[in-house]
Amino acid sequence: MPVYLPHPFDPLSSVEIEIAIGVVKKAYGEVNFHVVSLQEPRKAVMTAWLADSQNYPRPPRVADVVVIAQGGKVYEGLVDLSGPTITKWEQVHGAQPIITVEELSAVEHGCRVDPKVIEQCVLSGVPRDQMDKVYCDPWTIGYDERFGSNVRLQQALMYFRPDVDNCQYQYPLDFCPIWNSVEKKIVAIDIPKIRRPLRLESPIEYHHLAIEKQGGYRTNLKPINITQPEGVSFKMSGTGREIEWQNWKFHIGFNYREGIVLNNITFNDKGNVRPIFYRMSLAEMVVPYGNPEHPHQRKHAFDLGEYGAGYLTNSLALGCDCKGSIHYLDAFMPTQAGGVRKVKNAICIHEEDDGILFKHTDFRDDSTIVTRARKLIVQQIFTAANYEYAVQWVFHQDGTIQPDIRLTGILNTYVMNEGEDTNGWGTQVWKGVNAHNHQHLFCLRINPNIDGGNNSVHMVDAVPSDAPVGSPENFYGNGFYAKRTRLETAAQAMTNYNGATSRTWDMVNENVLNPNSGKPVSYKLVSREVPNLLPKEGSLVWKRAGFARHATHVTRYADDQLWPAGDHVPQTSGGPSKGLPEWIGDGTDSVANTDVVFWHTFGITHFPAPEDFPVMPAEPITLLLRPRHFFSCNPVMDVPPSYSITPSQVAAQGRGAMDATDKVSELALGGCCKTKL
Amino acid sequence: MPVYLPHPFDPLSSVEIEIAIGVVKKAYGEVNFHVVSLQEPRKAVMTAWLADSQNYPRPPRVADVVVIAQGGKVYEGLVDLSGPTITKWEQVHGAQPIITVEELSAVEHGCRVDPKVIEQCVLSGVPRDQMDKVYCDPWTIGYDERFGSNVRLQQALMYFRPDVDNCQYQYPLDFCPIWNSVEKKIVAIDIPKIRRPLRLESPIEYHHLAIEKQGGYRTNLKPINITQPEGVSFKMSGTGREIEWQNWKFHIGFNYREGIVLNNITFNDKGNVRPIFYRMSLAEMVVPYGNPEHPHQRKHAFDLGEYGAGYLTNSLALGCDCKGSIHYLDAFMPTQAGGVRKVKNAICIHEEDDGILFKHTDFRDDSTIVTRARKLIVQQIFTAANYEYAVQWVFHQDGTIQPDIRLTGILNTYVMNEGEDTNGWGTQVWKGVNAHNHQHLFCLRINPNIDGGNNSVHMVDAVPSDAPVGSPENFYGNGFYAKRTRLETAAQAMTNYNGATSRTWDMVNENVLNPNSGKPVSYKLVSREVPNLLPKEGSLVWKRAGFARHATHVTRYADDQLWPAGDHVPQTSGGPSKGLPEWIGDGTDSVANTDVVFWHTFGITHFPAPEDFPVMPAEPITLLLRPRHFFSCNPVMDVPPSYSITPSQVAAQGRGAMDATDKVSELALGGCCKTKL
Repeated sequence: MPVYLPHPFDPLSSVEIEIAIGVVKKAYGEVNFHVVSLQEPRKAVMTAWLADSQNYPRPPRVADVVVIAQGGKVYEGLVDLSGPTITKWEQVHGAQPIITVEELSAVEHGCRVDPKVIEQCVLSGVPRDQMDKVYCDPWTIGYDERFGSNVRLQQALMYFRPDVDNCQYQYPLDFCPIWNSVEKKIVAIDIPKIRRPLRLESPIEYHHLAIEKQGGYRTNLKPINITQPEGVSFKMSGTGREIEWQNWKFHIGFNYREGIVLNNITFNDKGNVRPIFYRMSLAEMVVPYGNPEHPHQRKHAFDLGEYGAGYLTNSLALGCDCKGSIHYLDAFMPTQAGGVRKVKNAICIHEEDDGILFKHTDFRDDSTIVTRARKLIVQQIFTAANYEYAVQWVFHQDGTIQPDIRLTGILNTYVMNEGEDTNGWGTQVWKGVNAHNHQHLFCLRINPNIDGGNNSVHMVDAVPSDAPVGSPENFYGNGFYAKRTRLETAAQAMTNYNGATSRTWDMVNENVLNPNSGKPVSYKLVSREVPNLLPKEGSLVWKRAGFARHATHVTRYADDQLWPAGDHVPQTSGGPSKGLPEWIGDGTDSVANTDVVFWHTFGITHFPAPEDFPVMPAEPITLLLRPRHFFSCNPVMDVPPSYSITPSQVAAQGRGAMDATDKVSELALGGCCKTKL
Repeated sequence: MPVYLPHPFDPLSSVEIEIAIGVVKKAYGEVNFHVVSLQEPRKAVMTAWLADSQNYPRPPRVADVVVIAQGGKVYEGLVDLSGPTITKWEQVHGAQPIITVEELSAVEHGCRVDPKVIEQCVLSGVPRDQMDKVYCDPWTIGYDERFGSNVRLQQALMYFRPDVDNCQYQYPLDFCPIWNSVEKKIVAIDIPKIRRPLRLESPIEYHHLAIEKQGGYRTNLKPINITQPEGVSFKMSGTGREIEWQNWKFHIGFNYREGIVLNNITFNDKGNVRPIFYRMSLAEMVVPYGNPEHPHQRKHAFDLGEYGAGYLTNSLALGCDCKGSIHYLDAFMPTQAGGVRKVKNAICIHEEDDGILFKHTDFRDDSTIVTRARKLIVQQIFTAANYEYAVQWVFHQDGTIQPDIRLTGILNTYVMNEGEDTNGWGTQVWKGVNAHNHQHLFCLRINPNIDGGNNSVHMVDAVPSDAPVGSPENFYGNGFYAKRTRLETAAQAMTNYNGATSRTWDMVNENVLNPNSGKPVSYKLVSREVPNLLPKEGSLVWKRAGFARHATHVTRYADDQLWPAGDHVPQTSGGPSKGLPEWIGDGTDSVANTDVVFWHTFGITHFPAPEDFPVMPAEPITLLLRPRHFFSCNPVMDVPPSYSITPSQVAAQGRGAMDATDKVSELALGGCCKTKL
């Protein structure tokens, strides 16, 4: 029987997770597993193997392991799976590893039986015998200076659900128990100065029982069917995680933290396979809430670093989350107790028609070309307590990559008294329900590899000519140009967004020039949702989320610098800041023409409105990574047009025109309705 | 037989155009018709009729007519079609009406036979006997101070096409003839100081003959079929131009100038038909080029005001420009000589699946709801010489309207010498081909009618709390809020974009409060591609395109203030500026809580790259108009979910869950490929 070896970028298989857990258990007994995940191959080794996999040794399979042992001691280690051998095992001090699904589940029960919590519930108006109807969203505590980083804590955002089918966020309670997840007990309760008792206003529900009761669903939507009778246009090769589609080829990885990771993204440019990105992922995010009243400042979840976009990922359903011809990839993760959890259909992959790719008509003679576009979507959806994030990596035929995020799910809510003023920190979205202002700030991490590993980042601003109107150089005042600033050092590369100059950033290989323009080959980041970090300089969030202080950072590549708020995010104090600020230090590192990592923070500021409740229609955020001076001309001219006729063919009554019009399309309506007089 | 009356917003029918032309010809003899278009009903009359069409008289049908008579004299008039009677007829001084398709076609021949043009062609390297291979794009002259506004002029951007099937923009010539379109002759030729002879480099072509010669089309795209076997979910009512879809209802108009015009946009909110916008259109655009060398400053086309998005609109093809189940509307326009031109399929209308509308999963028990979204697209595509603009008005079920423009077509090009420096004003996109920097600035005109006619505009900025970190009001520094500025006067309403504060603008009815939030009902404009006008203050473009100086303007409604660069745009000098600056004057008009028009200028700055040549992959620009505090809760909860299961149903092993999963979707690939060792 043939033996199948994993691709070095493949996530750990179920068997590999079991091997790693087994060897750790054997050595250290029963511990709680927080991380058992691929340590990605060292880049130097991996690039050598990618360049010549026949002659260069295959990079070893290594598991990155983080556990909490008895008494809350944290250890991190590495397991070489070929032994298997534990090659590193170290205690970690003053840091807390990522939270597990099991920890999230434990708090609710703990709250329900704690006498002090029961007392607060009763004070709020919950009948003493209805503690089974009390729920909580058990966030990490973030950071609370009263407790520090050495005690592992969660904060319980409390809710009441009189009916098990009530929306979870309909009836918030006003106090916040704090849970020690190692000792498994409530250690404190934060009680606000102004009390806000439970308000049992008539609820609004989104589930089907409620809608049917209110008059039922609309019946005027006719089906739209999307089919690919001849199959899809992509193929999965190797171990089933490398995808080839429309000149693109890349590896689709997945980990507990970032979810989807794309590696070794290349484009076949007329037979020349050109590297573009070595690695790309969403590497972190933070969701600061804007209500300054204690303890709401603790609401600033790092959904990736504290919870994990992999751990929180949904199992996707055909014809439901995804429509058309869909290919799925599963994901495997450790359980806290040392088992393996499988998420079936963690990633979905499909193609979509994308409207017009290009068109031109010559007004002289109506000679025309119309070519339709296609896009490839690699998607996951994760649920972070109340919110859902649908993360799509969209590939276009023209070399564009479009990271696209849709936010849906439910607002985090807090109770408000009748007639209470939100003071502008939130919105009453339903009677008694205050949804606080918040930001969703994402950090995109890109290790560019644009025609090779030595890259630079340029900041580009659209600006008027310096010469005044009436001067010989700019007599009519219309001169303008792209002002290009090469970011030389890590300090200089901390830049902010400028909407007025339509600021963009180019990842550039200055060593390779475009044969036509003479400009270096590049990929341009076009990102327009780039709010300032609104928590102030020196604030708790500002300190903990160093990556969010600027729209961009650039660092020299280092194998283990993956996550910009640090490796272990829960309960970091921000003093000093972990991750990017730590790596950048005094900022004197040269980041020009070398192996660089480009970090981009983007997102939205959300001031809630009633339209967002009780469940939010999806809100999109989208970026573009566009090839500029990368191709010598339009790279999609060989995509078959729907219709093409040249001037000479127009003159010849259409002889020789190419007609590949889609014959499945049809007219929607027959003869049209007119009003009689 | 029943008599069908047009809806008052309907464009003039073919018959109505003929009636108007007939009566004008009878009165004034042979003239050139530049405009014969609906004069939209006066708003006071129209709103009365809309409110009670049974009892209020139907607004009269009136044609707006602009002609050029003998000797280049310009007249504008009105024809009441019920007579028909000419109710107004006035000479217009110092202004030129919109260019016609016939004028565009005339210049090329004029150039080919003019001895001075032939002389320049020969000097450039065009063989004297190949003048039939010389072409031009015959733009309006814009404004040239040497000639003023009283002589009707076009500038001919010159090209050579050795083969009739060559890309029009491959071989530019360096001089620019000026054509008097009344006298039909070349009156001058602009010759640059530095000469750039014809460079016959080997061309790059996008048409199918060239691609087939170069190795043919890619063969790895499998069809995607989109079908609606039960029909579409929209219906056209009345005279066939009012559309109803998913609680939306609006009238789809069309004119020579703006193309699609949407009127009387309402939303049926649980039986309550609520007005939102009285009228919405793209009202103007300008495309300034950034090369300050004479005469390139004249390249700043007002594609709507000078050429007309209606006059330039494409006839769309099923399964080609549009895919799926499509409904079309035709358009009728006058010819210059007084005939009628029909553009079949000028507007296409269709639905698309739009991914996830909302989703939520409770992590406790995997109770889930997933609902898919649908969108409705009303589209036209117009060709402005080299560029194509696909203008989509996208309606979402949740009350969002998304104006979306895709730019494709071909770059405007100019010849460059071997080794010549573009000085940053352009890019060599192919050997010898210089594509100049330019902006595409669009002006969206909205007459809001949010729950009634008295509206205001608020500017909203996301800003940190004023209180410092450590202060009692903002101890942890995380406070932030939406700072709201009511735009009181037309002067104050001239605002610019601010990316750092994620600036948005709300159209608000302060007289109607949301029952939950207590905030006024509103629609928020989210627009992120809002570059500064790069031609400098006081420059020619700045003077002519007053609307583009700011991201927003607000004016009091006036029936005939439709087009922000003025009614007659060709050859305006900008001294004084027409349109918005003229109407705003000293800016003292109150624009709060009254019938207002909101003008928004947005767009992109385009620094060309080789990827854009010889034909540009479509580049998107998109805006959102989102209901905020307009609905009392999420307005799409009654859209049937694909799947819904409540916690109680999870506990009951799924009994009672709703499963309407799309059964047409299927798995893309069978068992997966693995690499053998």
